[in-house]
Amino acid sequence: MSETVTKVEITTTGKVIQSPCGPIIHGLEDVLVKTTAISDIDGRKGILWYRGYNINDLAKYSNFEETAYLIFNGRLPTRTELESFKSMLAKERDLPDEVVSTIRVLAPRAHPMHVLEAAVAGLAAFDPDINDNSPEANFRKAVRLTAKLPSIIAAHYRFSRKLDYIRPKESLAHSANFLYMMFGQEPDSTSAKAIDLYLVLHIDHEVPASTFATLVSISTWTDLYSAIVSGIATLKGPLHGGANEAAMKQYLEIGSPEKARPYVEKLLGEGKRLMGVGHRVYKAYDPRAKIYKELVRELSQSKGNMTYYNIASEVEAVVLEKLASKGLYPNIDFWSGIAMYLLGIPYEYYTPIFAMSRVVGWSAHAMEYLNQHRLFRPRACYVGPHDVPYVPIEKR
Amino acid sequence: MSETVTKVEITTTGKVIQSPCGPIIHGLEDVLVKTTAISDIDGRKGILWYRGYNINDLAKYSNFEETAYLIFNGRLPTRTELESFKSMLAKERDLPDEVVSTIRVLAPRAHPMHVLEAAVAGLAAFDPDINDNSPEANFRKAVRLTAKLPSIIAAHYRFSRKLDYIRPKESLAHSANFLYMMFGQEPDSTSAKAIDLYLVLHIDHEVPASTFATLVSISTWTDLYSAIVSGIATLKGPLHGGANEAAMKQYLEIGSPEKARPYVEKLLGEGKRLMGVGHRVYKAYDPRAKIYKELVRELSQSKGNMTYYNIASEVEAVVLEKLASKGLYPNIDFWSGIAMYLLGIPYEYYTPIFAMSRVVGWSAHAMEYLNQHRLFRPRACYVGPHDVPYVPIEKR
Repeated sequence: MSETVTKVEITTTGKVIQSPCGPIIHGLEDVLVKTTAISDIDGRKGILWYRGYNINDLAKYSNFEETAYLIFNGRLPTRTELESFKSMLAKERDLPDEVVSTIRVLAPRAHPMHVLEAAVAGLAAFDPDINDNSPEANFRKAVRLTAKLPSIIAAHYRFSRKLDYIRPKESLAHSANFLYMMFGQEPDSTSAKAIDLYLVLHIDHEVPASTFATLVSISTWTDLYSAIVSGIATLKGPLHGGANEAAMKQYLEIGSPEKARPYVEKLLGEGKRLMGVGHRVYKAYDPRAKIYKELVRELSQSKGNMTYYNIASEVEAVVLEKLASKGLYPNIDFWSGIAMYLLGIPYEYYTPIFAMSRVVGWSAHAMEYLNQHRLFRPRACYVGPHDVPYVPIEKR
Repeated sequence: MSETVTKVEITTTGKVIQSPCGPIIHGLEDVLVKTTAISDIDGRKGILWYRGYNINDLAKYSNFEETAYLIFNGRLPTRTELESFKSMLAKERDLPDEVVSTIRVLAPRAHPMHVLEAAVAGLAAFDPDINDNSPEANFRKAVRLTAKLPSIIAAHYRFSRKLDYIRPKESLAHSANFLYMMFGQEPDSTSAKAIDLYLVLHIDHEVPASTFATLVSISTWTDLYSAIVSGIATLKGPLHGGANEAAMKQYLEIGSPEKARPYVEKLLGEGKRLMGVGHRVYKAYDPRAKIYKELVRELSQSKGNMTYYNIASEVEAVVLEKLASKGLYPNIDFWSGIAMYLLGIPYEYYTPIFAMSRVVGWSAHAMEYLNQHRLFRPRACYVGPHDVPYVPIEKR
């Protein structure tokens, strides 16, 4: 029996830990785990592409449904294809009664991210394609998941406030329907646009931890629902989702635009972290943040409340002045919390809405990985003792 | 702005894919992701240690509760410590009514692994320590999860058969209580031992995909429940859990001991795979398999049914004769399915019972990783186009 041993040279900008078994690249920073044709980031220049399309173009001309089609299929749809895809999504929005019951029973106490994990796992039983991991079946499952996540989130919102579940309205677009299912009335176009643009900007971002967890799961040929559950469970972490909530809370603490500069200067003087600033990959201004800043301005005008936009703009000025030279710029979370806040969405739904968008990227990466499949099975370096003698309990 | 770039040399026996961005070590085979003092495997010699104790000693002298204590705490307990730990476990077995309701509503249609994902996510809301990621709080959560997983699985079994949920019995040991909650009567000692030894042998195994998914999740500082949900969702994959079911089905297909050799020889002649044989890490006889073989013999005698033990022994003889030279030996799944079958446990519960044990290792690895924490954030090599012009839908 013989095995080929290969020496591989890997370049990382991360921390390398020397262990008795060899080097550990901490957090696998810069370690390549797959090839992809879904999204690409130029972190130095601050550019993001989906399937080769610059995010600026998609933000300007596209919408959630079309961008989701693009992510899944690798190209933009014709009008007929888009109509058919939108119709599939709209028809798949409603939830089975059993899943509605699950959300109802858990919602009064449970965080919406836990309920999202539970409901997606529960939904698996109702998908006729659940045990079929073919590309066609996985595409159908991905569409169903994309359609149903907003309904789960809205149902949690309703039940946790002792309100009734509102069934989806097929005639509405994806984003407008979500706000309708949350608040019971059709949203104005700026509000719907705020959600829609948010969803477009978050739909994929190469391989952050949640996408990676989805890949590790699907690499065992688990079903797509379970792989998405892993993505949700991972996104729940405050180092991943949750930064826009923290940024918004900072603006509320600041309170008014003229207090922003002294607040930030004091914070930085104390060596503390400013929320929504800096990114593991972007060392330039996050292109999504630039785009969403404009939306936040527009939404703030429409809602007649410029306070938080103005506070954030003051904070931004200090960041650009003092931190940009270190590669720290506002990221998307710097701006997006303000939109959520102005839409009347409670904090705990910010990360679920992130999941509502990223489910598309998670699914697309899972399907892509199944085409270049290998079970993820890294190693740990054992640093403990060996052959410790077992002492009977009487003698311990 | 400057960043330190380090070149790291990694040795792998796996497949290396050359991408435009550099080498991809497929499935991260042999890539180190952490140090550990929990378990160690010598794949060439076929040795497994938990916290330095040889698995043979623990199988012979220990039990699930004591081994779980060892995994969590790094040393064997005194008698007082063990009694206190067993009492904690026993007191934490019961499920909140809301979680029982969730299982009841989903069980008629859902796979027990999906229900395990959903119920663990649902349980999170009822844990007073949920938002505390300190070692002490995570230990308490790990104990609660370890105590409650068997109850979820038994509840699924009961509800999916239109039977009532049986509340746990504090006076019984962990394994005996599980069989009691499944079948409604206290098991004989050989049956309880069959479960208990299975749990001891599966409690940890370094970093397979499910443990790795747990690590990727917890690296975002998500809560331990969510990280365990990722582990369960990943274990569900047929490449990870599920092999003992496949092996058992193979023995049923063979039908009688004298048909085993021709069956296996035909299969191998056709280049097909034999279930329960070979392992990504073990290139020798899996030490767990050697231990469990003896248990299966004992249980088969106790149940008065030697057929499957004898069939497996015949298959084993051919494997040792024809495949051992290639490093392919029986693994634990080769034998464990027979025990499950003889205990009257339906196939779909084999992997949940695996999770019942591995939840200890998942939790211990998550806690260990939080002490050497870094967010997992690998990269994908983008191989698609750039700057594709956005064509308006009318012109597509």
